[in-house]
Amino acid sequence: MLTRDVLEDPVALTRALVDIESVSGDEAEIADQVQHALGGTGLKVERFGHTIVARTELGRPERVVLAGHLDTVPLNDNWPSRTEGGLMHGCGTSDMKAGTAIALHLAVTEQAPRHDVTYVFYECEEVDSARNGLKILADKRPELLTDASFALLLEPTHGLVEAGCQGTLRVLARTAGRRAHSARSWLGDNAIHKAAPILRSLQVYEPRTVVIDGCEFREGLNAVRIGGGVAGNVIPDECVVEVNFRFAPDRSEEQAAAHVREVLAGFELEIVDSAPGALPGLDAPAAREFLAAIGQPRRAKLGWTDVARFATLGVPALNYGPGDPNLAHKQDEHVELDKIVEGADVVRRWLTAGA
Amino acid sequence: MLTRDVLEDPVALTRALVDIESVSGDEAEIADQVQHALGGTGLKVERFGHTIVARTELGRPERVVLAGHLDTVPLNDNWPSRTEGGLMHGCGTSDMKAGTAIALHLAVTEQAPRHDVTYVFYECEEVDSARNGLKILADKRPELLTDASFALLLEPTHGLVEAGCQGTLRVLARTAGRRAHSARSWLGDNAIHKAAPILRSLQVYEPRTVVIDGCEFREGLNAVRIGGGVAGNVIPDECVVEVNFRFAPDRSEEQAAAHVREVLAGFELEIVDSAPGALPGLDAPAAREFLAAIGQPRRAKLGWTDVARFATLGVPALNYGPGDPNLAHKQDEHVELDKIVEGADVVRRWLTAGA
Repeated sequence: MLTRDVLEDPVALTRALVDIESVSGDEAEIADQVQHALGGTGLKVERFGHTIVARTELGRPERVVLAGHLDTVPLNDNWPSRTEGGLMHGCGTSDMKAGTAIALHLAVTEQAPRHDVTYVFYECEEVDSARNGLKILADKRPELLTDASFALLLEPTHGLVEAGCQGTLRVLARTAGRRAHSARSWLGDNAIHKAAPILRSLQVYEPRTVVIDGCEFREGLNAVRIGGGVAGNVIPDECVVEVNFRFAPDRSEEQAAAHVREVLAGFELEIVDSAPGALPGLDAPAAREFLAAIGQPRRAKLGWTDVARFATLGVPALNYGPGDPNLAHKQDEHVELDKIVEGADVVRRWLTAGA
Repeated sequence: MLTRDVLEDPVALTRALVDIESVSGDEAEIADQVQHALGGTGLKVERFGHTIVARTELGRPERVVLAGHLDTVPLNDNWPSRTEGGLMHGCGTSDMKAGTAIALHLAVTEQAPRHDVTYVFYECEEVDSARNGLKILADKRPELLTDASFALLLEPTHGLVEAGCQGTLRVLARTAGRRAHSARSWLGDNAIHKAAPILRSLQVYEPRTVVIDGCEFREGLNAVRIGGGVAGNVIPDECVVEVNFRFAPDRSEEQAAAHVREVLAGFELEIVDSAPGALPGLDAPAAREFLAAIGQPRRAKLGWTDVARFATLGVPALNYGPGDPNLAHKQDEHVELDKIVEGADVVRRWLTAGA
């Protein structure tokens, strides 16, 4: 139960949220509890599936978004939470119930922010983008997001400001051949052998590093999966290489696809997934304010996050959260308790500075 | 039911055997029926699992083996048999119930062969060699086979004499790397990319052709399977290429393995399966008699067959059977009815010539 005591303590709230199991697709209970906690705050609360939007209506000239997802990757023998020596361990501690707890804590306790705030708690971030609660909200009710001038996504950045994000493209490169018994291989045409130049091109590929707005974005072009073959005595007639291109946000999705086509020229390619990057957007006034409040240098977000969705809606966005992003999706996922406290303080200072 | 009428007609017997479903591992019923058919022939019948051995005891100075397997590859919407325009279609028609029917037909009907004959009807030829009924028999009771001076294996050769056989070696070539999130690929080490030189070596490999005893053996070195990858956003830490080397019988298994190690030098290799080839062995007296009876040129067997097992036991062996070997394991597998009749006549002529 998210009691008042729990809601007022971001560490206790993180623990409580972690201990509500909410693997993607199973967010009903956590969404119910978040919705219940927001009742009686005076915020205007709306629910879409298991995504909850809570808006202040204070008539401020500017509006900002604080957003966090409610779901986690599958449990991996690392649930419920366990706190030991200043660390809270468990599935979702870092990615991203600590960040989500900061947003919920502020939604319930901060009565007088200097900007109007739209709090978004959403489902299914860890699975196919078609099910992503923020995407569904942006498609159905974009006006609930687009009236903001800045969004803060509380994804794990280990207390640093991570600006923008890489785009990501997944492509299948296929080779085709002809089956034959391997004892008479000259009657066939080996599709796996034909994949040699694909792997070679990826092996010698030199990825770009681009500096945008003071943030360094490193790209990467990698085979992430390969499969081919029929049986131990059959010349294979197909080989498929799945390639993932993580690209800097100065390339559009189309430009990224054209680049992969150039690198793998001559091969049959099929794009199976694509998401744009997001430019850092550090010149938006609210972004500058946030950077000033936190008083830290920014760095590029090396990974894809939902800041790209905000960017697509025309809302500049930053990543900032207590967890270590390198622990996300790992069995030993954990978060430092003092990073949670520090994060809640930083965000509150920004929201109330000058108020 | 294998009635006397059916047993006396090799075409009807082929049809009856095809219509007893006997995918590898499921040979109980067909073995029961074969065993029953051999009862009352005066042959000495012994059963080992679903492998049946029936021996004449005529006191002839020489003994020969006629052998055929009882199992088939899995059905592929091609069962039961269908006869149309001189062809019998269906799973097992070519590989090798037509050949097995010839052996069973002769076992039941031929009372006075010039050599003693050991008929072998065995299980599990189409699966891992550890389950192969002929192998199990050779391990347990080799004396039932080694007293023969020649073996005829009725595997499909389309009515030609195929001598000897290729050896086969399967090897796993592995590359190792280090996982990382694909958005930060420089923290990892891509194992799939490292497989590029393996595929390249196979792609440019030029296989040998060797003529032995007038038979031309073509070799082949092929990737038959490849696999690697963890998820669409993870740098893969392992890639495995399964390589099949079909080698001419002038190489031993050890020499074949050394050759593959040379071609794929620098990679971690694991031998997962190995079977020796068999030299043509055409100078054995019974082999010469058979060639004279059939009056045809011989060619090399391009494929691995159990003649290699006989060769290992010191028993020269040939492949000769009615089916087309290129149809084996295919959905449109079929056999010409007149090839069955011709095959039965040829083998009987050899067994009774001079008698």
